[in-house]
Amino acid sequence: GRGLELEGSSTPTSHRLLAYSDALLSIIATVMILPVAHTKIHPDQKLGESIQQLLLAKIAVYLMTFLIVTVAWAAHVRLFQVIKLIDDVLALLNLACMMIITFLPYTFSLMASFPEVPFGIFLFSVCAVVIGLIQAVIVVYGFYHPHLLNHEIQVSENQNFYKRRILKIILRGPVLCFLAAIFSFFFIPLSYVLLGLVIVFPHLTRFITWCKTRIVGQREEEEEHHSLETFTFYLSEPLSKERVEAFSDGVYAIVATLLILDICEDNVPDPREVREKFHGSLLEALSEYGPNYLAYFGSFVTIGLLWFVHHSLFLYVTKATRLMELLNILSLAFIGGLPLAYQLTSEFAEKSHNELEAIQVSCVITFFASIFQFAIWTTALLHERETLHPFAQYGGNEHAFMFAKLALYPCVSLGAFFLTCLLSEFSTAIFHLMQIVIPFAFLALRIFVRISLAVIKSMVSLSRRKAVLSEEEEACLSPTETLS
Amino acid sequence: GRGLELEGSSTPTSHRLLAYSDALLSIIATVMILPVAHTKIHPDQKLGESIQQLLLAKIAVYLMTFLIVTVAWAAHVRLFQVIKLIDDVLALLNLACMMIITFLPYTFSLMASFPEVPFGIFLFSVCAVVIGLIQAVIVVYGFYHPHLLNHEIQVSENQNFYKRRILKIILRGPVLCFLAAIFSFFFIPLSYVLLGLVIVFPHLTRFITWCKTRIVGQREEEEEHHSLETFTFYLSEPLSKERVEAFSDGVYAIVATLLILDICEDNVPDPREVREKFHGSLLEALSEYGPNYLAYFGSFVTIGLLWFVHHSLFLYVTKATRLMELLNILSLAFIGGLPLAYQLTSEFAEKSHNELEAIQVSCVITFFASIFQFAIWTTALLHERETLHPFAQYGGNEHAFMFAKLALYPCVSLGAFFLTCLLSEFSTAIFHLMQIVIPFAFLALRIFVRISLAVIKSMVSLSRRKAVLSEEEEACLSPTETLS
Repeated sequence: GRGLELEGSSTPTSHRLLAYSDALLSIIATVMILPVAHTKIHPDQKLGESIQQLLLAKIAVYLMTFLIVTVAWAAHVRLFQVIKLIDDVLALLNLACMMIITFLPYTFSLMASFPEVPFGIFLFSVCAVVIGLIQAVIVVYGFYHPHLLNHEIQVSENQNFYKRRILKIILRGPVLCFLAAIFSFFFIPLSYVLLGLVIVFPHLTRFITWCKTRIVGQREEEEEHHSLETFTFYLSEPLSKERVEAFSDGVYAIVATLLILDICEDNVPDPREVREKFHGSLLEALSEYGPNYLAYFGSFVTIGLLWFVHHSLFLYVTKATRLMELLNILSLAFIGGLPLAYQLTSEFAEKSHNELEAIQVSCVITFFASIFQFAIWTTALLHERETLHPFAQYGGNEHAFMFAKLALYPCVSLGAFFLTCLLSEFSTAIFHLMQIVIPFAFLALRIFVRISLAVIKSMVSLSRRKAVLSEEEEACLSPTETLS
Repeated sequence: GRGLELEGSSTPTSHRLLAYSDALLSIIATVMILPVAHTKIHPDQKLGESIQQLLLAKIAVYLMTFLIVTVAWAAHVRLFQVIKLIDDVLALLNLACMMIITFLPYTFSLMASFPEVPFGIFLFSVCAVVIGLIQAVIVVYGFYHPHLLNHEIQVSENQNFYKRRILKIILRGPVLCFLAAIFSFFFIPLSYVLLGLVIVFPHLTRFITWCKTRIVGQREEEEEHHSLETFTFYLSEPLSKERVEAFSDGVYAIVATLLILDICEDNVPDPREVREKFHGSLLEALSEYGPNYLAYFGSFVTIGLLWFVHHSLFLYVTKATRLMELLNILSLAFIGGLPLAYQLTSEFAEKSHNELEAIQVSCVITFFASIFQFAIWTTALLHERETLHPFAQYGGNEHAFMFAKLALYPCVSLGAFFLTCLLSEFSTAIFHLMQIVIPFAFLALRIFVRISLAVIKSMVSLSRRKAVLSEEEEACLSPTETLS
């Protein structure tokens, strides 16, 4: 049997399967923003109240779904760091796992609509347990066919040790969920606490260990580094940079395309209405939607440039630590909120007293999305030797420019926020025009940094040449030697 | 200037930018199925008529958008086969290009709603022209900074020749669109003909050349091969397999996740309704949605397995020819129609006289999606030396299994279609259960093929051993030597 299987060798590397899983998971994580963004708000209603209403229910669903799906994604990444080759059985098991994960947002919506009914939380927990079990089956299958495993584990003698540890990491969440499912019939609050624990647990242990190393090993930097390493080993390796990028790309891509869907569904005028109301003039009918187009292009530019900043940053990231991953996920959670910002600013454009509040919400979302990107960068700088490419380290060629890129959006969104407070005539039109102008700021920035770098370089080389020339005078060397 | 730029060296390979573009483009191509799927059909209305109504407007919009976006995608792939490294300016230009492409579906919706008004087609053509111009700027920028180019072009002496040819290929479509924009104010039908030409043109020229080689070079296979090669050179290289896979993955992923969005928006019961209608029993309220869950899981399994078949096929495809790419895009266009199939079968489950027609539509969509996959495979077999891995060629280990995998869905969907004609009691529930059972058929197939292969092998080795033994008796060799 074994010989035949190796000969048949339908065991390619898992690259495409993983890319597909990343795409699925990132879309599922983000797609729950749509019910939030599509909540109808009457233009006469005060936005303040309706936002509070939204915050309590649908945004909570969105955020929790996002975090839970990212937890499932992280488990998936860990799993396929152990299993490197995929055969048909594993591919089918993985698809089954994806199917249950896509069902999670629905169970979560049930839970949010009926928080006091045990069935919602029961269904959710059961799904989580099934996902855990499928992943455990994948691990067991992988260890039963060792040629599918990671090379390091394949050659190690402690395969059983690895197997038990990986199963323990994977089944930790499902066991908590299983308890939650049981308690859902007796005492629902405990179930919620248990589910919350599933999300927070990895980060909590990380934080506790971090505090410990801070308190105990504060003096000797060497020791801290050491304990940090044993810790990352303990909770297994950090996630692969490639998959972090793929997941992030999925989120940015779906957010950018959700916008056009809204435009296509809401802003194509009805032929009958055009005939009756606008005397058959399509242009006149479309001019009503002018602010929506502006909002669309403004939002798309914002998403595109935030992706661009993320892309530029991760070009120079050589290894993403767990804290950087957490910050990245928080940034993505706010990126996922951008369709809501678009909806608010296009809905309340120039026709209601909520206009400024809508702009403020947009600014807050953009600010948090970009400030977490900035935090990834500062965190990376703390351990720059391990995490960053030399170009981006202190004194590297790209360091100043990277800083400027990352600082741009936090500054702009803060600035826009304060403008809404100071100027009562600030409008969505101005806001969106600001958004559209920013890419040119990027290019201007690039040119400015280049010119100033060139000036500094020429000054440095000038002073160096002077020094060389004075040395020359002293030592009387031939000029060709110094110039070469 | 130049030295500084090379030192700054923010010129990585374009991998991540291309993956992101593929994700964006595949989602945009597919997302227009949503207005089709969300068209409300009264349960009492005859499905036959409403389908005709749909076919005429929204499905046409979907299909045309899909084809146009794939044309834009193909141009994008060609472009970045020439330009291999990306700097900030190129990344921003690419994002600008993506922004205009995401706007295409909207202009197309306008065109479909107001076919007789020139503004719709004018706007569409202008977008296409702008996309072409941005791509031309990218090419010019790339040739101005030759270190960004493909290595082969970089070292060749005929850079200007390449530049002109690439610009010609890229600007061919926009020039036609520019003419269409001008004619839209004088004679609209001509504009439509020109736009149709943009979509059909690459395939048309390919078909004409193919016919020529058929008629002229039918006798000598060598000659045909030769002319085929010069032809692919003429229309530049076939698209890279990696990007074909990435685009396909995007389509499969968005289709799979659009389903859960529908479930989440439509099938969470209203708390007030549960209180009043079901006496507070959530389970009873949810049991109303039972058929929808079944439809969801059935559809997800279908999409997942069609992806799996695609994945298995492309594992053994070493090079995708242009005909294979065309077939792949046609297959994907039907894959994109699966949310419509889901919507129909879940809407008309067990409560209307349209149930069987809904199943038939599902079968037709699945059949075409899978038969085009099968056609990719047969096309690949025609030139199996160039296009397929030895395992999948005639007589390869995986050949029989691959055939079985690819034939499964066409057979099943045809079978289900005929069952709806023969059995009046065939229902959506049975149909979805069939869909869910199919993965087990996959596994059974695998085991069956393995066993039969093992039987054949043992028979072959048995007969060989007999032959060896008879030789042994003749030559009196030691048994250890023959067994090794």
